[in-house]
Amino acid sequence: MQDALLALTRYWTDRGCMLVQPFNTEVGAGTLNPATILRVLGPEPWRVAYVEPSVRPDDARYGENPNRLQTHTQFQVILKPDPGDPQEQYLASLEALGIDIHAHDIRFVEDNWANPATGSWGLGWEVWLDGLEITQFTYFQQAGGMSLDPVSVEITYGVERIIMALQNVSHFKDIQYAPGITYGEAFGQAEYEMSRFYLDDADVDTQRRLFEDYAAEARRMLDARLPVPAHVHVLKCSHTFNVLDARGAVSTTERARAFARMRGLAREVSALWAERREELGHPLGRTEPPPLATAPAEFPTVTEPAPLLFEIGTEELPPGEVSRTARAVRESLAGKLAGTRLAHGDVEVHATPRRIVALVPDVSPAEPDAERFVRGPRVTAAFDAEGAPTKAAQGFARGQGVDVSTLERVEVDGVEHVGVTRTDVGRGAVEVLSGVLGELVAELRADKNMRWNDPKLSFTRPVRWLVALLGSDVVPVAVSTLASGRTTRVHRTAGSPLVEVPSAAGYPDLLARHGITASIEDRRAAIVTAAQALAGSVGGTIDVAGESALLDEITNLVEEPNAILGGFASSYLELPQEILTTVMRKHQRYLPVRAADGTLLPHFVAVANGSCDVDAVRAGNEGVLRARYEDASFFWRADLKVAPETMKAGLERLAFEERLGSMADRAGRIAAVAADLGVELSGSARATLERAAALAKFDLGSHMVVELTSLAGVMAREYAVRAGESEAVAQALFDMERPRSSGDAPPSSLPGAVLALADRFDMLVGLFAVGAAPTGSSDPFGLRRAAAGVVSILRAHPPLRGITLARGLAAAAEHVRAQGIEVPPATLDEVAEFTTRRFEQQLLDAGHDHRHVAAVLALPPATADETLAEIERRVGDADFATLVAALQRVRRIVPADTEPRYDPVILAEPAESALHQALVKVTGSLGAGPHSLADFVASASGLTGPINTFFDDILVMAEDPPVRAARLGLLAAIRDLAAPVLDWQALGTSFTTD
Amino acid sequence: MQDALLALTRYWTDRGCMLVQPFNTEVGAGTLNPATILRVLGPEPWRVAYVEPSVRPDDARYGENPNRLQTHTQFQVILKPDPGDPQEQYLASLEALGIDIHAHDIRFVEDNWANPATGSWGLGWEVWLDGLEITQFTYFQQAGGMSLDPVSVEITYGVERIIMALQNVSHFKDIQYAPGITYGEAFGQAEYEMSRFYLDDADVDTQRRLFEDYAAEARRMLDARLPVPAHVHVLKCSHTFNVLDARGAVSTTERARAFARMRGLAREVSALWAERREELGHPLGRTEPPPLATAPAEFPTVTEPAPLLFEIGTEELPPGEVSRTARAVRESLAGKLAGTRLAHGDVEVHATPRRIVALVPDVSPAEPDAERFVRGPRVTAAFDAEGAPTKAAQGFARGQGVDVSTLERVEVDGVEHVGVTRTDVGRGAVEVLSGVLGELVAELRADKNMRWNDPKLSFTRPVRWLVALLGSDVVPVAVSTLASGRTTRVHRTAGSPLVEVPSAAGYPDLLARHGITASIEDRRAAIVTAAQALAGSVGGTIDVAGESALLDEITNLVEEPNAILGGFASSYLELPQEILTTVMRKHQRYLPVRAADGTLLPHFVAVANGSCDVDAVRAGNEGVLRARYEDASFFWRADLKVAPETMKAGLERLAFEERLGSMADRAGRIAAVAADLGVELSGSARATLERAAALAKFDLGSHMVVELTSLAGVMAREYAVRAGESEAVAQALFDMERPRSSGDAPPSSLPGAVLALADRFDMLVGLFAVGAAPTGSSDPFGLRRAAAGVVSILRAHPPLRGITLARGLAAAAEHVRAQGIEVPPATLDEVAEFTTRRFEQQLLDAGHDHRHVAAVLALPPATADETLAEIERRVGDADFATLVAALQRVRRIVPADTEPRYDPVILAEPAESALHQALVKVTGSLGAGPHSLADFVASASGLTGPINTFFDDILVMAEDPPVRAARLGLLAAIRDLAAPVLDWQALGTSFTTD
Repeated sequence: MQDALLALTRYWTDRGCMLVQPFNTEVGAGTLNPATILRVLGPEPWRVAYVEPSVRPDDARYGENPNRLQTHTQFQVILKPDPGDPQEQYLASLEALGIDIHAHDIRFVEDNWANPATGSWGLGWEVWLDGLEITQFTYFQQAGGMSLDPVSVEITYGVERIIMALQNVSHFKDIQYAPGITYGEAFGQAEYEMSRFYLDDADVDTQRRLFEDYAAEARRMLDARLPVPAHVHVLKCSHTFNVLDARGAVSTTERARAFARMRGLAREVSALWAERREELGHPLGRTEPPPLATAPAEFPTVTEPAPLLFEIGTEELPPGEVSRTARAVRESLAGKLAGTRLAHGDVEVHATPRRIVALVPDVSPAEPDAERFVRGPRVTAAFDAEGAPTKAAQGFARGQGVDVSTLERVEVDGVEHVGVTRTDVGRGAVEVLSGVLGELVAELRADKNMRWNDPKLSFTRPVRWLVALLGSDVVPVAVSTLASGRTTRVHRTAGSPLVEVPSAAGYPDLLARHGITASIEDRRAAIVTAAQALAGSVGGTIDVAGESALLDEITNLVEEPNAILGGFASSYLELPQEILTTVMRKHQRYLPVRAADGTLLPHFVAVANGSCDVDAVRAGNEGVLRARYEDASFFWRADLKVAPETMKAGLERLAFEERLGSMADRAGRIAAVAADLGVELSGSARATLERAAALAKFDLGSHMVVELTSLAGVMAREYAVRAGESEAVAQALFDMERPRSSGDAPPSSLPGAVLALADRFDMLVGLFAVGAAPTGSSDPFGLRRAAAGVVSILRAHPPLRGITLARGLAAAAEHVRAQGIEVPPATLDEVAEFTTRRFEQQLLDAGHDHRHVAAVLALPPATADETLAEIERRVGDADFATLVAALQRVRRIVPADTEPRYDPVILAEPAESALHQALVKVTGSLGAGPHSLADFVASASGLTGPINTFFDDILVMAEDPPVRAARLGLLAAIRDLAAPVLDWQALGTSFTTD
Repeated sequence: MQDALLALTRYWTDRGCMLVQPFNTEVGAGTLNPATILRVLGPEPWRVAYVEPSVRPDDARYGENPNRLQTHTQFQVILKPDPGDPQEQYLASLEALGIDIHAHDIRFVEDNWANPATGSWGLGWEVWLDGLEITQFTYFQQAGGMSLDPVSVEITYGVERIIMALQNVSHFKDIQYAPGITYGEAFGQAEYEMSRFYLDDADVDTQRRLFEDYAAEARRMLDARLPVPAHVHVLKCSHTFNVLDARGAVSTTERARAFARMRGLAREVSALWAERREELGHPLGRTEPPPLATAPAEFPTVTEPAPLLFEIGTEELPPGEVSRTARAVRESLAGKLAGTRLAHGDVEVHATPRRIVALVPDVSPAEPDAERFVRGPRVTAAFDAEGAPTKAAQGFARGQGVDVSTLERVEVDGVEHVGVTRTDVGRGAVEVLSGVLGELVAELRADKNMRWNDPKLSFTRPVRWLVALLGSDVVPVAVSTLASGRTTRVHRTAGSPLVEVPSAAGYPDLLARHGITASIEDRRAAIVTAAQALAGSVGGTIDVAGESALLDEITNLVEEPNAILGGFASSYLELPQEILTTVMRKHQRYLPVRAADGTLLPHFVAVANGSCDVDAVRAGNEGVLRARYEDASFFWRADLKVAPETMKAGLERLAFEERLGSMADRAGRIAAVAADLGVELSGSARATLERAAALAKFDLGSHMVVELTSLAGVMAREYAVRAGESEAVAQALFDMERPRSSGDAPPSSLPGAVLALADRFDMLVGLFAVGAAPTGSSDPFGLRRAAAGVVSILRAHPPLRGITLARGLAAAAEHVRAQGIEVPPATLDEVAEFTTRRFEQQLLDAGHDHRHVAAVLALPPATADETLAEIERRVGDADFATLVAALQRVRRIVPADTEPRYDPVILAEPAESALHQALVKVTGSLGAGPHSLADFVASASGLTGPINTFFDDILVMAEDPPVRAARLGLLAAIRDLAAPVLDWQALGTSFTTD
């Protein structure tokens, strides 16, 4: 292992990195060494490499866990500024480590890094070696709350993992550390003893005192304007906090307070450091951005229509952005071309993680000339009484460079003006495209954007090259530092990674010859075909529909899919299948292989990128999966030894939100809300709910869920059953986490549904109350999902229609208030509105008429669904249409504050009396509400005629006040009878027949 | 610089060292990293190399001092066990660093390392590169109070210094740290800010609390049997203590307590670590010592007398040990040869730092046979009445293997025995020498001895080879792992460092041909000649007599003296010359060059070892001296800005001894004692004393003396004069530190003498009182020197004879007691006795008759000197002899408790009366005492006759009690008259004439 450290050191120092030493106080990661966290600030260049033994007390396992250590070794590299080819430099470093990058599958898999505690974040990747995460690669965007300019590239190698893979050992202790000495022999005792210290023996009171002392010293050093010792003490704080945490001694309140304190200090340190460097005149100089590309001045002339190829070459895009960007580029390019006078064929856009390829056939060689009338003064103002041109006309003609005598006359909006017809000479296609394509690149944006070494561009990942060809001519495009050309890049490990593109025609084929499938659809199809074939070879199949999202992701993780069949020991099949598939999907992006009956087989399909040594890659991926399954087995066995109640006690230590307390507090509130709402249930369902509520969220205290959070609920069900709970209780605990996402199924049981509702009502009310409502770009707690979940659950369970939004939110508010948090009524209105908007979105997304949607939106969702269905059935129903019109007319004429009371005696006119009689009859036949729309129509259609007659014969606004009041009262009664059924006004003219 | 770190790392890992990381909590030295301090314990092998940024808060200088940093970089190597050639491996590492070891002067200069705080020590060297200390090289003997087996070799490179030399820069900030970035650019801000923290801004109360918390945590971890986290917390303690110390916040009491606490913890950590490794079954295995040499079984036969060469090859011996060992080997070899029957010439022994060469001419080829009478039973027991041999005789004969009839008779001590004459056949010379030489090596011992990889040997430095030749035959010697041969080693940098020795004859010439001067005298003479020549070339001279000790040292630091003339800027000559010469002598072992009038010239002579690039070595040495003088100038200028009183206030922070308080306390006591004793002085001397006493020791607070402790007193004089004190006061302050060593001059002024006495009385009384009296091997406070100083001062200043030991000690005791420390009268007796023993030694060493010495020892030293001189003048003086005899006779007969009173009336006999009359007359003429011996003799010789007559005529012990009492009273009066002059009994028979 030490050879690897030396090789990396040598590699990076040969590339101009300074070598520094690990920091001499405990740090949790190489990032926290001032050589990173402070040096990335400000304009000074900085290239550094160092080893950093990173201390994570929480990862202490007495040296027993094969992959987890209280101190692991990071190798950290900072390149400031981004040198333009950091990935290529990184890959060469792997070769320096002795890794054959041609044989192995090395991929850059989206992974964004953020450390809110210090106001730091960056975008980048995990680097995978045959499925094993070996490096974190980040373009550092912000540190200590300050935006970084220039951006730094941070490369963090996980040295033990790399070495375990290289040496093919499965426990860190077996690593050959130096000739004749293993890692375990060298560091085993320290690993055990420091684990003891962190987990069992560190004195909590002492550590608390140390934390205070360090924080105070950091504060003093900031006041003395000494950022370096201040940082040292923030690090000591942080380590001490981690020790306390590992000792299980941090309450939620303490945690929040400690984080806030450390965050504040860290931000001040950063700001002060930047200030001090400024004062010192930036001793290391200032980074110069790379020069801007020269704007093209000449454009080749094209004579025949020709195809356009425009390729935007990037570093690995996040899979979601591949498809999104392809769409965006297609729209943008089509739009921009439409803004020109160039004729062209349909815009087609392909995308891989490393390129967006736009193809446009038949682009005409130039824009046609275009005539254009330039309007001058009105004729009346252009000529004086004598018909001689006025000064206005003369001035206009002069301005246009024509003789006043040549002015034409044209009528504009009925008024005659003088003017000039001008000819816009069409530009050549290359010139037009140069501008269009340049704008397109400059306007590229993604959900999350970053900066790199380009002074003007911003995108989800760096754009590194542009190929722009019209036919075989280069379209010169200059965007910031990028200039287009005809050189594309193929696989980084190819013999010649740079390839000249002779012409736009047949570019996808050229890429295909270099192993790259540009089309997303083609790649996906190839993956499905290959995966099914591999699965079939072991008597299995891939659930293509079920794994659709995973397939989409995989498709956009590779340029050249290379499906590889791997296997794992059948013994792991004893674990719940959700565990196995979650690990495969979420961690490894492997496709599970299933038998005909849907059960898992001990196989998977991994999709590598490009050609490689299949056996080596398979072995690597199998090894990674084995380690993960081994971990999971360990957690599973460990969890099974702990009763659910005991596990739940651990929730005290899981923070939820500073003011809302721990996860235990939250589970308590959920149970209380569920009890309130549970009156809707009866008998055994009620009993199930009570028991499940008592255990709510207990599995968050399990090892498995701590490791694999997406298994929350899944593990609750598994552990509950095994602890002797009823299937119903287990199912309710499983259900309460559903739906997890917009496509997910809602709870299948009523107790589960009530629990799930209680969960979400609490979350919404609590977080809105403490001011954590989502903003346009930020929804860290997933409140949109929670609100959508409420709606989905209520829609799925009509029996729960008694649980209105208002009732659910009020119940949640009661228990949040019990914790001393103010929940103003306006907040509940806000949450209700927020939730209703989700419902509206769901309905509109499903294609319903927006007027119908608006008409039902205020109803309980289950009722709304039924009502909406009924409305849609009534489309074309003339009787219904007249009823609607009548009711809308009633509503329009009655002031909102009119009481539905009247003295029938006063209503003496026949039309009055008839309407009164009809209303009495309808009311009687309907009985007590609520009424479904169908029921209502069946009875209330009897009102249509009397209403219309009433309006025909009767002047509602009689001069005699009592008469007027009685007439309005009658109409108000009709209004109020109809109102609960739906919002009739909202239907608008959707049923208007004329 | 980073390349150097990488080169060293690569070099040592290529040699089987494990690479570890710097420790992740602050350490003051690489030694404290558990990879050293714990791993050297126990039997497990361990080879490790690492960089260690070493934090020394006290060395913080805001980055302003060119050589001093709060964090400097050590490169640490541990070789356990000693590989047998660690020096050679080390030298090759310098070559790996790009140092041309042939061009430069690289030397191993005695430097022993001890860290009493952790019970750790070792013997070894500073390694010098052209006079610059670049490495500490230590054979680690003890750690944490535990003896190390095997011994570890510890090599600690001072990286910044090496790089400054290699890059030829004079400020650490100018080091090119990495391409394009200097040390100052990379670390300057941290250096400044951490200096601020350590020196100015760290919060003292916080750091105190941290110290307590860390110590408590260490304690708890020990109790939990976790040595690793315990050690971590001891390190944190230690660093915190250093911070407090740098902040000037450690009182003497605190310091002592803190050290005791840390020492206790550190020792427990070591013991616990060793225990735990034992319990773990020594996971890294056990070191096997190298195999023992095979004992020789056959010896070549020599036929002619031949010369013997025996060379003991060592690693660089301390200079003092070179001469001492040469003498010891000469004595040992001569003695051992004398114990054999081999004839041989005179034993001659030469020595260099790397070899002891014994030469013995004319060793006879074999021992002659020898006859030996073996005594049997007495003849009376050997034969029965019939003259037949008894069983006893028969048994004896059988035992001797002879027939009983052949028994001879021999008289032993007047009794006739039977016996047998046996012939011991002489052994061959080679066999005899093999035994003798083996014993000699096994018995080698020095003042301080160490162990290395040899399981049985122990010496001041490792013995690495033996050459033993008789003529041209190898004398096979096997001692532990060493076997003799004919291969010697010459300069390590020689083309062929191993040389075959054909025969013993002419060995010194052979060595000389390889540049090595074996003879100490020859080397010294060569150095003197060369140095004088070089000095002469710049119009100067070397004070050969004055630099005698330095010349001796230099002589034994080299095998091939290569004197090189260097120079320094004349501007430094403005500094006091003592500073310049102290730096030259003590730090650099350079010979100062002086003008004819004794003033310094801006030159020096360095003596390199062997051939080298003279210009390079000169430049290197000049650079080192320049840096040191630059430092000294800085201190000088800084000190001159501080008034002596202010400087003295700093003594509060200098610990003297735990119970005796700070140096300020001690200076206060000295002043008080000086005031008591100062009554001996008068007028201006008294005033001078008072002022000087008020400033006593102030210069210990100066930068200069903190750096160069041997300049204490010297700087006091310089700074005092420049602060406007009188020359007399300045001289007294200078004087009070004298004599510094046994050969040093005593104070020249009376006020200085009184201060010097007060200083030493306080030291002796104080330290004896707190139980810190010296033991056989340990005298850390130099109390022997202090006591000898008292004597020297008193001998040098007869006017101070009123200051008796008793009076001085009593005065000192008074002020020590005032500090609450008990000083029993027995302690004062003990100190007096201790001091008197020093006086006795001085006198005996000067060659005086031990009886004469004994006679004067109780007198005040000045008086004793005079008396002793008078005694010696009286040798051969018959009258004096009879007086002595008479007085001794008086003393012998008078019981000790007899009062010198008598009634003259009772003394009626003529002899009685005559003696009484004579006594009256002598008493009258002598007047009041004290009397010098000369005066006494002049008067008291009149008593000789009467005394003798008295004894002839009078029976002292008369039966009548009043008569007897009067006679004894008379003699007692004579006894008491003579007693103060000297101890007459002690003269013994030295004046006996018969």
